[in-house]
Amino acid sequence: MLRSIRKDNTSKILKRIMKSPVSRVEIAEELGLTKTTVGEIVRILLEKGIVTEEKDSPRGVGRPTISLKITPDCAHVLGLEVTRDEIAICLMNASMSILIYETYPLPFQRDREGTLKIVYRGIDRAKNMLEKLGRKLSALTVAAPGPVDVEKGIIINPRNFPLSQIPLADLLKDKYGAEVWVENDADMGAVGEKWYTGRDDSFVWILTGKGIGSGIIINGELYRGENGYAGEIGYTRVFDGERYVFLEDVCGEDTVLKHVRSMGFESLAEAIESEDDRVREYLDSIAEFFSTGLLNLIHLFGISKVVIGGFFKEFGNDFLKNLKMKVERYLLYKHEVDISFSAVQEPVIAFGAAVHALENYLERVATS
Amino acid sequence: MLRSIRKDNTSKILKRIMKSPVSRVEIAEELGLTKTTVGEIVRILLEKGIVTEEKDSPRGVGRPTISLKITPDCAHVLGLEVTRDEIAICLMNASMSILIYETYPLPFQRDREGTLKIVYRGIDRAKNMLEKLGRKLSALTVAAPGPVDVEKGIIINPRNFPLSQIPLADLLKDKYGAEVWVENDADMGAVGEKWYTGRDDSFVWILTGKGIGSGIIINGELYRGENGYAGEIGYTRVFDGERYVFLEDVCGEDTVLKHVRSMGFESLAEAIESEDDRVREYLDSIAEFFSTGLLNLIHLFGISKVVIGGFFKEFGNDFLKNLKMKVERYLLYKHEVDISFSAVQEPVIAFGAAVHALENYLERVATS
Repeated sequence: MLRSIRKDNTSKILKRIMKSPVSRVEIAEELGLTKTTVGEIVRILLEKGIVTEEKDSPRGVGRPTISLKITPDCAHVLGLEVTRDEIAICLMNASMSILIYETYPLPFQRDREGTLKIVYRGIDRAKNMLEKLGRKLSALTVAAPGPVDVEKGIIINPRNFPLSQIPLADLLKDKYGAEVWVENDADMGAVGEKWYTGRDDSFVWILTGKGIGSGIIINGELYRGENGYAGEIGYTRVFDGERYVFLEDVCGEDTVLKHVRSMGFESLAEAIESEDDRVREYLDSIAEFFSTGLLNLIHLFGISKVVIGGFFKEFGNDFLKNLKMKVERYLLYKHEVDISFSAVQEPVIAFGAAVHALENYLERVATS
Repeated sequence: MLRSIRKDNTSKILKRIMKSPVSRVEIAEELGLTKTTVGEIVRILLEKGIVTEEKDSPRGVGRPTISLKITPDCAHVLGLEVTRDEIAICLMNASMSILIYETYPLPFQRDREGTLKIVYRGIDRAKNMLEKLGRKLSALTVAAPGPVDVEKGIIINPRNFPLSQIPLADLLKDKYGAEVWVENDADMGAVGEKWYTGRDDSFVWILTGKGIGSGIIINGELYRGENGYAGEIGYTRVFDGERYVFLEDVCGEDTVLKHVRSMGFESLAEAIESEDDRVREYLDSIAEFFSTGLLNLIHLFGISKVVIGGFFKEFGNDFLKNLKMKVERYLLYKHEVDISFSAVQEPVIAFGAAVHALENYLERVATS
């Protein structure tokens, strides 16, 4: 068999086993491969220690079937989310069991050195724990806001972001001797949602925070675009009554909190609980702006399954209903639109980043 | 070798040969397949008469190499573009040589029966010509505005379109005994552009006409979305100074022509030649609206190569420069943006529809 096809099949089989324990026969059936092909590849995965066999208790008469699963300790990976305020780390083993989830605030100055120090502290924490267990860190993925150069492992934008424009992946690779990837945060949120819920379809995962972005999954695969970004819904141009602004200028977390405080509330939660008419009107205007961005997304990608993560979740289900109604009003033609809040608890982005590191690391080991 | 992999490889080899004459060795190298695999599949393609061998005159010393090309007469296919005013037909052989390109106006009433009659007239014209040549029509693709149900071969929308909501593919299949597909017109424009220019990258092809839509090619493959549409840039919500409208409401051909006439010009060409300040301002406002749609497209798809087909081409290169400037002003970060008018002469959509029919027909024959 040719090397490129073999690589391809190895990845497919690996991803299938990552999803859930499965027998050789089931893999062959699901992926449309011969039993011989599956057998050969699985033999190598077993030899490399990536996969382990597990006897299932027999159902009814007959021999017990043998399931394949990822060897839990064959790798330990870290997902590291950097926001403008803090970092979050998620350490997991190869079966995606979370060993650590922690956050660390960034220094007030948001300077490069200070921010890097916090990043190192997070990774050191994971490394130390693994050392105590007699394990080492295999790979890590940094999830950062804005466009990234995935090839070079550099955060391109936002320019004022403390870790932008430095060879971040190389820096961390040299320091920790692990494989390192740099990815967009919303993309990793989408990956996290996909693996956490086990869905394999096409959907858009929207990250609402200080900025607004989205990760796009097409038939179970992350869609990246060609510019270091895609799904930048926060850059939708909307008219705010006086001028055109970016969607994230009117719907970003800072703007919303500022407005809520200007109405005399301490927090978003307090404002929403108050059931004040001004709050209701304000949320309606947010839904109006946001529906414009969603409609663009739906009309351009032809995908109408949308999952919203981040601070919008605090707006509650009435907001969601209103948003859906506003979207359906201007839909190209009447069809099902599925808009929901992410049911995944934090840390979905750091979790997604860790899974991303795991997928890529195992694939390299399996196909090398 | 397994059937699904073989099918996949057959399609790849077929598409490569459709692109340009090529030797077995070159195919193996370009596609990363073994010579044995290529040899086996090519043998079947030769047996089925889809592919023909051609001796190249030797370059320098050595045996002449043997090129493979598509047998010109192994299929004849028709692309049929239906607009709101007329139909265009493009009949080609399997080497994509155009035998007929003609347009027929639709009846004034735009009724279903009358429109179908014109469609039949177009197909009959092609059929009669082929009969004289002793050939038959193998397949045809209808390109229509708005969302289509590709699986069922039905135009979903626009609802007031005379051919909407009828089983169009089945109807034509029964009547002509040929394979029939129904596709979106902008998608077929993108396919036409791709094959006409031989490009194999990612780009967005925008159809400007009474409506505004786009076809999206990602790494040489048409991206379809899941709702029967994708790339519906005409449905971008823009603020017209008083209220939100759809982009195609302000940039569609009818609106533009009406406005040009209200300024006292007979035609768009006359208005542009006049160099009247009012015309310049008006074109600037069109560029402003259109740049909003393009920015959404670029920011969401992460693709910054845009080809514009349709009546916008009449606006000329100054318009294009202005448009590009407006797009670059609000780009997420400074990177190359490539916006051009389609260099393909009409009938790019009917041509694309014919190529679509050819690709699909040959693939079916090759893999059945």
